[in-house]
Amino acid sequence: MQKILIRGGKLITASESIESDLLIDGERIVAVGRELSADGAEIVDARGKLVMPGGVDPHTHFDLPMFDTVSSDDHYTGHKAAAFGGTTTVLDFVPQPAAGPLRAGLEAWHAKADGRAAVDFGFHINVTRLDDRILREIRLLPDEGITTLKVFMAYNGRLRLQDGEIFQVLRAAAECGMLTMLHAENGDVIDLLVQKALAAGKTAPEWHARTRPAWGAVEAVLRGVALAAQAEAPLYVVHVNAAGEVDMIRYARARNLPVMGETCPQYLFFTADLLRRPDGAKWVCSPPLRTEADQAALWEGLADGSLQTMGTDHCPFFFDGRQTIDYEGRPTAIPGKELGEGDFTKIPNGLPGVGDRMPVMWSYGVGQERLTPNHFVALHSTNPAKIFGLYPRKGSLLPGADGDIVIWDPGMRLRYGREIAQHRTDYNLYEGWEMAGFPRKVFLRGTLIVDEGRWLGRAGQGCFVRRQPGAPVL
Amino acid sequence: MQKILIRGGKLITASESIESDLLIDGERIVAVGRELSADGAEIVDARGKLVMPGGVDPHTHFDLPMFDTVSSDDHYTGHKAAAFGGTTTVLDFVPQPAAGPLRAGLEAWHAKADGRAAVDFGFHINVTRLDDRILREIRLLPDEGITTLKVFMAYNGRLRLQDGEIFQVLRAAAECGMLTMLHAENGDVIDLLVQKALAAGKTAPEWHARTRPAWGAVEAVLRGVALAAQAEAPLYVVHVNAAGEVDMIRYARARNLPVMGETCPQYLFFTADLLRRPDGAKWVCSPPLRTEADQAALWEGLADGSLQTMGTDHCPFFFDGRQTIDYEGRPTAIPGKELGEGDFTKIPNGLPGVGDRMPVMWSYGVGQERLTPNHFVALHSTNPAKIFGLYPRKGSLLPGADGDIVIWDPGMRLRYGREIAQHRTDYNLYEGWEMAGFPRKVFLRGTLIVDEGRWLGRAGQGCFVRRQPGAPVL
Amino acid sequence: MQKILIRGGKLITASESIESDLLIDGERIVAVGRELSADGAEIVDARGKLVMPGGVDPHTHFDLPMFDTVSSDDHYTGHKAAAFGGTTTVLDFVPQPAAGPLRAGLEAWHAKADGRAAVDFGFHINVTRLDDRILREIRLLPDEGITTLKVFMAYNGRLRLQDGEIFQVLRAAAECGMLTMLHAENGDVIDLLVQKALAAGKTAPEWHARTRPAWGAVEAVLRGVALAAQAEAPLYVVHVNAAGEVDMIRYARARNLPVMGETCPQYLFFTADLLRRPDGAKWVCSPPLRTEADQAALWEGLADGSLQTMGTDHCPFFFDGRQTIDYEGRPTAIPGKELGEGDFTKIPNGLPGVGDRMPVMWSYGVGQERLTPNHFVALHSTNPAKIFGLYPRKGSLLPGADGDIVIWDPGMRLRYGREIAQHRTDYNLYEGWEMAGFPRKVFLRGTLIVDEGRWLGRAGQGCFVRRQPGAPVL
Amino acid sequence: MQKILIRGGKLITASESIESDLLIDGERIVAVGRELSADGAEIVDARGKLVMPGGVDPHTHFDLPMFDTVSSDDHYTGHKAAAFGGTTTVLDFVPQPAAGPLRAGLEAWHAKADGRAAVDFGFHINVTRLDDRILREIRLLPDEGITTLKVFMAYNGRLRLQDGEIFQVLRAAAECGMLTMLHAENGDVIDLLVQKALAAGKTAPEWHARTRPAWGAVEAVLRGVALAAQAEAPLYVVHVNAAGEVDMIRYARARNLPVMGETCPQYLFFTADLLRRPDGAKWVCSPPLRTEADQAALWEGLADGSLQTMGTDHCPFFFDGRQTIDYEGRPTAIPGKELGEGDFTKIPNGLPGVGDRMPVMWSYGVGQERLTPNHFVALHSTNPAKIFGLYPRKGSLLPGADGDIVIWDPGMRLRYGREIAQHRTDYNLYEGWEMAGFPRKVFLRGTLIVDEGRWLGRAGQGCFVRRQPGAPVL
Repeated sequence: MQKILIRGGKLITASESIESDLLIDGERIVAVGRELSADGAEIVDARGKLVMPGGVDPHTHFDLPMFDTVSSDDHYTGHKAAAFGGTTTVLDFVPQPAAGPLRAGLEAWHAKADGRAAVDFGFHINVTRLDDRILREIRLLPDEGITTLKVFMAYNGRLRLQDGEIFQVLRAAAECGMLTMLHAENGDVIDLLVQKALAAGKTAPEWHARTRPAWGAVEAVLRGVALAAQAEAPLYVVHVNAAGEVDMIRYARARNLPVMGETCPQYLFFTADLLRRPDGAKWVCSPPLRTEADQAALWEGLADGSLQTMGTDHCPFFFDGRQTIDYEGRPTAIPGKELGEGDFTKIPNGLPGVGDRMPVMWSYGVGQERLTPNHFVALHSTNPAKIFGLYPRKGSLLPGADGDIVIWDPGMRLRYGREIAQHRTDYNLYEGWEMAGFPRKVFLRGTLIVDEGRWLGRAGQGCFVRRQPGAPVL
Repeated sequence: MQKILIRGGKLITASESIESDLLIDGERIVAVGRELSADGAEIVDARGKLVMPGGVDPHTHFDLPMFDTVSSDDHYTGHKAAAFGGTTTVLDFVPQPAAGPLRAGLEAWHAKADGRAAVDFGFHINVTRLDDRILREIRLLPDEGITTLKVFMAYNGRLRLQDGEIFQVLRAAAECGMLTMLHAENGDVIDLLVQKALAAGKTAPEWHARTRPAWGAVEAVLRGVALAAQAEAPLYVVHVNAAGEVDMIRYARARNLPVMGETCPQYLFFTADLLRRPDGAKWVCSPPLRTEADQAALWEGLADGSLQTMGTDHCPFFFDGRQTIDYEGRPTAIPGKELGEGDFTKIPNGLPGVGDRMPVMWSYGVGQERLTPNHFVALHSTNPAKIFGLYPRKGSLLPGADGDIVIWDPGMRLRYGREIAQHRTDYNLYEGWEMAGFPRKVFLRGTLIVDEGRWLGRAGQGCFVRRQPGAPVL
Repeated sequence: MQKILIRGGKLITASESIESDLLIDGERIVAVGRELSADGAEIVDARGKLVMPGGVDPHTHFDLPMFDTVSSDDHYTGHKAAAFGGTTTVLDFVPQPAAGPLRAGLEAWHAKADGRAAVDFGFHINVTRLDDRILREIRLLPDEGITTLKVFMAYNGRLRLQDGEIFQVLRAAAECGMLTMLHAENGDVIDLLVQKALAAGKTAPEWHARTRPAWGAVEAVLRGVALAAQAEAPLYVVHVNAAGEVDMIRYARARNLPVMGETCPQYLFFTADLLRRPDGAKWVCSPPLRTEADQAALWEGLADGSLQTMGTDHCPFFFDGRQTIDYEGRPTAIPGKELGEGDFTKIPNGLPGVGDRMPVMWSYGVGQERLTPNHFVALHSTNPAKIFGLYPRKGSLLPGADGDIVIWDPGMRLRYGREIAQHRTDYNLYEGWEMAGFPRKVFLRGTLIVDEGRWLGRAGQGCFVRRQPGAPVL
Repeated sequence: MQKILIRGGKLITASESIESDLLIDGERIVAVGRELSADGAEIVDARGKLVMPGGVDPHTHFDLPMFDTVSSDDHYTGHKAAAFGGTTTVLDFVPQPAAGPLRAGLEAWHAKADGRAAVDFGFHINVTRLDDRILREIRLLPDEGITTLKVFMAYNGRLRLQDGEIFQVLRAAAECGMLTMLHAENGDVIDLLVQKALAAGKTAPEWHARTRPAWGAVEAVLRGVALAAQAEAPLYVVHVNAAGEVDMIRYARARNLPVMGETCPQYLFFTADLLRRPDGAKWVCSPPLRTEADQAALWEGLADGSLQTMGTDHCPFFFDGRQTIDYEGRPTAIPGKELGEGDFTKIPNGLPGVGDRMPVMWSYGVGQERLTPNHFVALHSTNPAKIFGLYPRKGSLLPGADGDIVIWDPGMRLRYGREIAQHRTDYNLYEGWEMAGFPRKVFLRGTLIVDEGRWLGRAGQGCFVRRQPGAPVL
């Protein structure tokens, strides 16, 4: 097979920065070293560039049915957008079927993804309905390469499990080395506030945020912590968004509980004020955007290690789906946020982001000295790889790891937006932002898939990554 | 009416200590002053003694049906025991009837209490089943002199309300100036742990504590805080027992939320280790006793104002009810803790304490310099009086207040125990403890009811105190 | 002697609010009661008014030489201004003489104050030079009625003691029941920053603040805490002004150290930005004004009990002393802030405030629901009285206390400023502020000294209050 | 030059663990990779072993004159002991000469070390006397390869600088990219307590600890933090030993101050109780050993990143120097702890430890799951290398780094003690401790210097490492 020699770059790992060549043989990194010999290898000149392990996005929703539509990126368009932003592995959530075994959901998701995947991928499974059969089936999931479950404390009557059920999932998961992920909001309160808002004729997008108050998220995090403590199970809180959530994760970790947290760029850069704009529906996601004080606390949580990963919760919708085009440029009608005109509860929930994550966090995290380059790699690649059982295949530049490499140019400057991001939607959260630092080349297992803004990848090239249970708690 | 002149004592209020006479005319304090003129008044010599407002116990359960028995103190014996310990007002919890209006429960409780009451009393109402009718009825309670409700997060299928229901109670209560009290434990987890323990043949009393873990109480407190924050309602957490609960109340108060907390002497002095003794059932209460670290945190919570009151959760049972005698010395068979032999879930939950509270806290709180005398008065009388809308009739030595007075002798030494405490049960938690400081005389609205260990009171002498809504948050 | 019966008011103590009459006989309160009989007493109608104990200002500097001038209020004008604001006791700092015994300083201060005093007063002594003779003399101070010392960590070469000297003062003080007060700033750093600023030609008033950074105050507080901990001595930090100082006091108190703190209104309402105004010299005091974040933290410190008292650090200077008039309206040239034109180090340090304290804190503390009326009384009267050994003569409304009474009208509205405040200076910090609530009448030991804005007091009427050692730590 | 191929081991870096070969060519690592080709390289079989970068001990005192003796390890014996424990770089402190320039001290230390060094080494310089000449000289130190200074807040009259002097050192150091290290204790209080103890006839070793109380260390840390904040300089606190010191470093870091901390194994494993033993002098070091609560807080500080490095403060003395042998086995009389018989102030201060650090922390840190292997490498090698400007030559396994390698056998078990540790002293703190995990081979820049317990190194082999200013703050 083909050898690739990346020469003269600066390697950035989660802890170190060093000038070195890096050699890929076939799909794997086989050596890092000074002046590695090139015999037969294709040479990639990385002088003046950074060489980082490909990003791992632990939280995506491709081709996800919601309300009367579907998230507008599928497992090809979304993967492609991920790659353009430097991400070479994505972990997508599989809904539990309304009836029958979890395996049926898994099969459905494989059917959607396997032939279209353009980067490597894995699946988490949502557990949104529990009975003894499901509890038993959880223990079989590692055989399918699935080692992570998500449970919800909100969305009563749809996705929510009761505390006792979550406790049982935590225990079952822990017993077979799996990790439970938590969506932390208080479903009861949300439902009552929504009901009251609608009854009062409050239908505008801002009421989406006003009916999902932060205190409900804060208590839900501690509730999750307590359930995990009592079940002696590890816990991973997805999309941490409120200051108090960081407080509670820090409180738990200081008491030696195996609790981890993820946040997403949208919670670091935007506030709920945006929902009051005429195009406020663009910013509707769950949990909602919060305040500047929450942003500051999330940055502190990243800085002191209370939060270990950056995800995206990528779940895009067209702002106006009536005039959409598909990734081949043909008109294709996927309804979008317009579904919620006149009723905020009908706005599809979610934002694009899988491709934005690394460029935005580099320019506005590393660039503003909130993160070091090493911490950047830890948050976007090494840590999610470790936590989700992908390590050492993913998240590492050391020999043996997959040849998933980003050649990052810290000196590249560009004006970002929808045209550059490759998400299949008609808007971008960071439209017009100046970026300083961007990927030049992206390799997936030794194959160049993005080169100076050109797409060289193809559907089906991405592989499902079977994961092993027993991943560490960071 | 009769005048009483208490002469030469040191008056102890919640903030001050001063030497002064105190004059009661009829039922009320009418003056405090130096060398008040005595014309016609009966003189009580208080030289060398402390003069304090009668205690207010915010948390009792008299004559409460539980499992196949009833708490062994009724509204006469319990009141009498209270008075011996310096307490002249008690607030008892009225269960919600299985069907029908709250008012029916209230009537039942008046029927039990009105003719037997020996000190003044008020009622809280438990809301353990909610529908629109009950929600509407809550608003009528202030007309009945009831301004406080209690809700439960534990006891699924019996007492527990769901979060959304608690939220509605909080909102309804706040709208009419009432205060919601919270029993904070996680019912779901308890039920699962109990089920598992029993399935594993774990039936001894210690499993009562092991199936009600502290983390469930901690998260429940924060959940209550969050519900109250979102409902814009004040909250009072009953029987705070775990270090983390204090942390969460402190966290809420530091964020300006109107959250208050009560603890009880049993949580300050005993640990769950006692449940492993052969007579472990004696120590079974809910929430259970915890650890020494929890005790230390509770004392800190009292010291820094995170906790504002001392209650008792008085709910006594005979350790062996097969050989019980009633308060007139006649044999009367009230089953006791023996009901739970061989199954910890059947042990009646509760401890005696209404009479022990003030003597124990004086000797081991003030006596060990953990509390000042003023703080003692605040915790046991003034604060509960204010929080529960009894102030300024109760909890004060200033003119206009009821003539509820304790003449406390700080120099009195005695060996405490069941013989001195007047609870109707066959054991006392503090058996053999040395007391330094004890009540000499107790007045209820100007009438001497305890005099040097002699009982001068009578059934029916205690009055129901109608309370006003809008009490302050301390 | 004369009796005064204050009838129909609402008595406000540090813990309680109650409607009652209050009877003064001669200099003392002799009774509080409902419908007290009036025989021979002069009746004061207090209906609709609040009756509070006279304020105690623990921190004033009257007639204090500084640089080439003297603080512009002397022991008569300053006392009078205090009384107009509801304060009836002041504690003034006596400088240590450049040579000789402390007693000489004391005599000098008695000479200044005794004949001019218009309210009651006591003295603290600064210890700014230490040797064995002084250490021995400290132990004799209680015989002089002096139980409090102040030491400085700043003002190298003038007032500062070294850490080891402070440690010795703390130990000597503790051994005889005295309390040590601390001015907490880092003198070394200030001197270097001042030197550097002057060298760079930075002479404007704002450089006063910029050369006295908050971190120096924060570490100095913890240093004081550590010295006190090791000396097993209580500590009182004067004029707490920075957020971190509150953090450190809270940290110490949570570890059971006997540490207390005072703040002053100027630190709650103003920031260092004012020093950049053309009349910035008006706002020059030491320690300097800080930021809004510091203000917020100080309010939190008051709210959670980390800070126990409000002082004023009253030390006024004319903004332009060249055109000054004395209290009898005659021109008298006391130089003022103009001394520092062109050199911020020569601006006399200090602000007026002794009369503003209670009106401002009522209107903007109680009025904005940051303090309850009871907490207001605690901070401004009862707590300083207790901490400084004046209690129960001062700070109480209970019988036996001195008849120092303020009749406060919560409904009185006025526009505040220099004309109303009676300080002898040409500006007021609160010029033009709207007040809601103000004193109507002020009594000093039973004598009406302020009546509806009229001055009825006289020089020499105020008494030196001999204090006893062994005051409590709050 | 020679090539070494370490084959089949598991590479442990500060963030990752991966199976890979590692190739050294001459003095440097040139490649890490799978199945690296061996042509001409010597093969080292590392199967089943861990391959880690050589340890960096940031804190040693070799051949240091103290009282009437000298620390018993010189720059050869101490280096050799370091190497046996896996450490291949040491940073030693150079005393400032009593008069003259810093450079003279530096020359003296080079004279002692250059010919004897057996591992690589660098120097910190103590600044214990400051004047303008010294301040200017500081700026020249980077030209000598010295980028770190230490200042002392204790040892009045010998080593201590005043706060203002420390402030100037911090500023001068920051201006040229150097790092200031701080010995944090309160010298004033120590001197007074020592004086008092001796006057009371308290001469036993335990009084060494009792006269150096923790509060003095805690305030000194915050004082250092404040000075650094105001000087806009980074700070590194050496030998953190008290819980409150960790609190203060955490407080500073949460406020984004560039403050770092080091602790040492002795503070994690021993308490001051040992000083009461008959051989208590063995445990005399400064700062002294503390309590179990302090130990717990130090472990927490390591866990949450408040502390970034492990040093040793290696400064050994014979317990009884009258019967000492030198490293060649010949009798040589270096006085030891016996100097302090009858006067604790004369006991030479210090403990052996340079060789114990890594084995003890592996067995009792990693082995007890308080540290991961990656965190172990970070604390003992990568972090000190980065902080002290040695990175990427030291602390890394990536190509370009020096070939300083430890082959660590996690399965090796042995009973530790003086015989195995190679310190030149007559006792070991960990005598008899069971170790699980130990170095098998140690390479210094590609040369095998320890092989299965055999010493292959030689004096003069170690090189002085010139360091660059501008090292990062971790």
